[in-house]
Amino acid sequence: MSTPIETDVLIVGGGPAGMMCGITAAQFWPARRVLLVRPEEQAVVPCGIPYIFGTLGGTDEDLAGRAPFLSFGGKILIGHIASVDRNHRIATLEDGTHIAWNRLVLATGSTPYLPPIDGRELPGVFQIHKDYDYLDTLLGETLPGISRLAILGGGFIGVEFSDELRKRGIEVHLIEQRPHLLAGSFDTDASLAVEARLASLGVKIHTGATVTAIEADASGQRVGGVRLDDGRNLPVEGVLIAIGTQPDTRLAADMGLTLSRSGGIWVDGFQQSREDSQVFAVGDCAHKQDFFTRHASHALLASQAAAEGRIAGMNLYGLKLPRTNAGTIAVYASQIDDLAFGVAGLTEHTAREIGFEVFIGDARLPDHHPASMPGTHEVHCRLVFDANSERLIGGQVIGGATTAEILNTLAVAIQLRATATDLASFQFGSHPRLTAPVHPIVAATGEALRRRLSPS
Amino acid sequence: MSTPIETDVLIVGGGPAGMMCGITAAQFWPARRVLLVRPEEQAVVPCGIPYIFGTLGGTDEDLAGRAPFLSFGGKILIGHIASVDRNHRIATLEDGTHIAWNRLVLATGSTPYLPPIDGRELPGVFQIHKDYDYLDTLLGETLPGISRLAILGGGFIGVEFSDELRKRGIEVHLIEQRPHLLAGSFDTDASLAVEARLASLGVKIHTGATVTAIEADASGQRVGGVRLDDGRNLPVEGVLIAIGTQPDTRLAADMGLTLSRSGGIWVDGFQQSREDSQVFAVGDCAHKQDFFTRHASHALLASQAAAEGRIAGMNLYGLKLPRTNAGTIAVYASQIDDLAFGVAGLTEHTAREIGFEVFIGDARLPDHHPASMPGTHEVHCRLVFDANSERLIGGQVIGGATTAEILNTLAVAIQLRATATDLASFQFGSHPRLTAPVHPIVAATGEALRRRLSPS
Repeated sequence: MSTPIETDVLIVGGGPAGMMCGITAAQFWPARRVLLVRPEEQAVVPCGIPYIFGTLGGTDEDLAGRAPFLSFGGKILIGHIASVDRNHRIATLEDGTHIAWNRLVLATGSTPYLPPIDGRELPGVFQIHKDYDYLDTLLGETLPGISRLAILGGGFIGVEFSDELRKRGIEVHLIEQRPHLLAGSFDTDASLAVEARLASLGVKIHTGATVTAIEADASGQRVGGVRLDDGRNLPVEGVLIAIGTQPDTRLAADMGLTLSRSGGIWVDGFQQSREDSQVFAVGDCAHKQDFFTRHASHALLASQAAAEGRIAGMNLYGLKLPRTNAGTIAVYASQIDDLAFGVAGLTEHTAREIGFEVFIGDARLPDHHPASMPGTHEVHCRLVFDANSERLIGGQVIGGATTAEILNTLAVAIQLRATATDLASFQFGSHPRLTAPVHPIVAATGEALRRRLSPS
Repeated sequence: MSTPIETDVLIVGGGPAGMMCGITAAQFWPARRVLLVRPEEQAVVPCGIPYIFGTLGGTDEDLAGRAPFLSFGGKILIGHIASVDRNHRIATLEDGTHIAWNRLVLATGSTPYLPPIDGRELPGVFQIHKDYDYLDTLLGETLPGISRLAILGGGFIGVEFSDELRKRGIEVHLIEQRPHLLAGSFDTDASLAVEARLASLGVKIHTGATVTAIEADASGQRVGGVRLDDGRNLPVEGVLIAIGTQPDTRLAADMGLTLSRSGGIWVDGFQQSREDSQVFAVGDCAHKQDFFTRHASHALLASQAAAEGRIAGMNLYGLKLPRTNAGTIAVYASQIDDLAFGVAGLTEHTAREIGFEVFIGDARLPDHHPASMPGTHEVHCRLVFDANSERLIGGQVIGGATTAEILNTLAVAIQLRATATDLASFQFGSHPRLTAPVHPIVAATGEALRRRLSPS
């Protein structure tokens, strides 16, 4: 064996989980060497990918910076890890290079799920891989030949791509099996607001519809249309399949690590693997547990991945900072045109399905005040409380530019287990140019308590 | 005595505290009659007052709505309460009308402090009274004759007015005794950022300067200038005095209620007066206690006033909703041009002055990501933690449009007594068009812990 590269911490994967783990490890354990290995020369910001195709205008506008990691002394090596020998603490790259480590963090991510649908192999069918060269080719070569596109899947990726691609003049058909877009994430009102906005921008929405096959054009050589379960054929030159992702656990499985029944690498509250306290897993490849139920969570989010990277990074050499992963809250937001929308925790629908008895509060306010202030949007805040404990268990916000930060306030309140009584008269700051006159969380909590005490 | 008007709840004053108390009382005690008496036919949004003179363009653009209160069955009567007889539960208006009540809420507000400075009686000298007619006269008659103005006091009112009035083409001199603008509210970096922005917009800033007299012009009939303690005279036609406010407690004093040593009406955690559990006080007229120290707090904020109104409103007829006033956090924000800035809780300076041993974290990030996203601003977040408990005790944010909602997240975290460990790996949502890649609170907390564990 050739002389191995020596490191203390070896991180496999350079997405948000791996990079955040690297930054945290380099910050908190400055005497340790931290090496991150990733296959990509250039890494992209995953949440920014849809915007490469419209708002940003190019792949180079969406590069993830490595300066913070390097500035704390971290190193980056471009390569593919082929195998890991846990007994000897050695990883081997595809080119034969060996790396000796004493802490290993798997951050191998996820890949888009490709369903076994007829025609999936035709040129013109694509998915979204978080890879610079792939995306650059998509932008420069695939898309210019497409004037009509079908998107399979009305989740966040489908919704964001439909808006960005219609900005390029492409006729977009967005197809979702469930009765509404974003049905897994939002209660119906919010889905309706997003559907109305997308439709007004020219996106053709097909909900309650299933694609039964992707069909070739007359040449038989490329996509010509998609067949729906009602028998219709929608003529399109391109198909984006965005119906979910699956954890990439090949390396972990080869290493003999336990995978959870739902497919991610089993980890404890410190992101440690079951078999080896020196091997960690973070991000999309790691099993996620729901904050409220302990059931598996299937929300794979960059923000959650980064949180897991921080937890592992802090706890690599002893649990000095006993911050554990309490489970996924699932906080996410997006924006179509100037309509922003997001969710933290459980929707009313999901909470009831799980079995919570809930009470609900809604508030609609201007997001600046008085409403005559320039740039004012309406903000609609809907909160879900557990009726027995009065604890906040979820919230949805539809509004303007401050929507996601209002959601982050909800996220903190959920994680700190705030009750309706805590929130009903909370002190918040307000300012005409920056906020609603009453904080939407306070207004919605007040309304929830009022309905509960005086149902009418 | 003529037949009195009958009500259950009588609220005296129609600012944010009184109106919020009225809305809350009408919502939570629907069987009770709620009457609000205020002197103004039209009430203005207090935080919006500076913007009447620039951004909004008129007093009518800053009216406070009464629709929510009326929609829940509340009534409004325009008049001045001259006296209150607590024994017989009767209030008397200046016009002789009597009102019988069983719960009384004083929300009589505050008035600007007028220092005993020579020349204060000259025409051209004014203050900011929260009164529609006064403000309308100021806008329509006083300001048009002023091309140069001195503002005494570099707090929030002085800063906001200086920006709005310079937009009218007025040459504004902003004069502050302390070494920096907003010195009571911010650590020095934030003050410097605000000073730099205001100066770039043409405001003349005079810090460390005291006005020793307001001087008349050659006619002797109106303002001609202000004299500074270094002997200079600044020629101006107008002077705005904005150096503080004092609680309006005349009615409370006449009623024999205890006032605190700092001048507000003494209240308990439910906003009840000391002498009478059926008499409450809320907002600027009520004593405020600091959340951290129990010392008197002198931050008189509309948001705090509204929080007190909610607390009293919920607890008027029994402490069914035992939400108490835990003390003032002081959360506030403002914006000059596109530079927003705000604070929640203690600054580093104030915390040390009180005697806390603190550790500090700073983070600077783009408020969208990648930073190439349109509309991206830098956000600077500075957090102050108590070294013994690791509890968050304060934070300052300078940034773009999301600044105040980031502060509100800090406010929730402070009130729920979050520690640095809680915040260091919190789950937040992120989105390229709406947030920073890492939440500024998480980034600053990480930096605070890093500096604490590995000081370098």
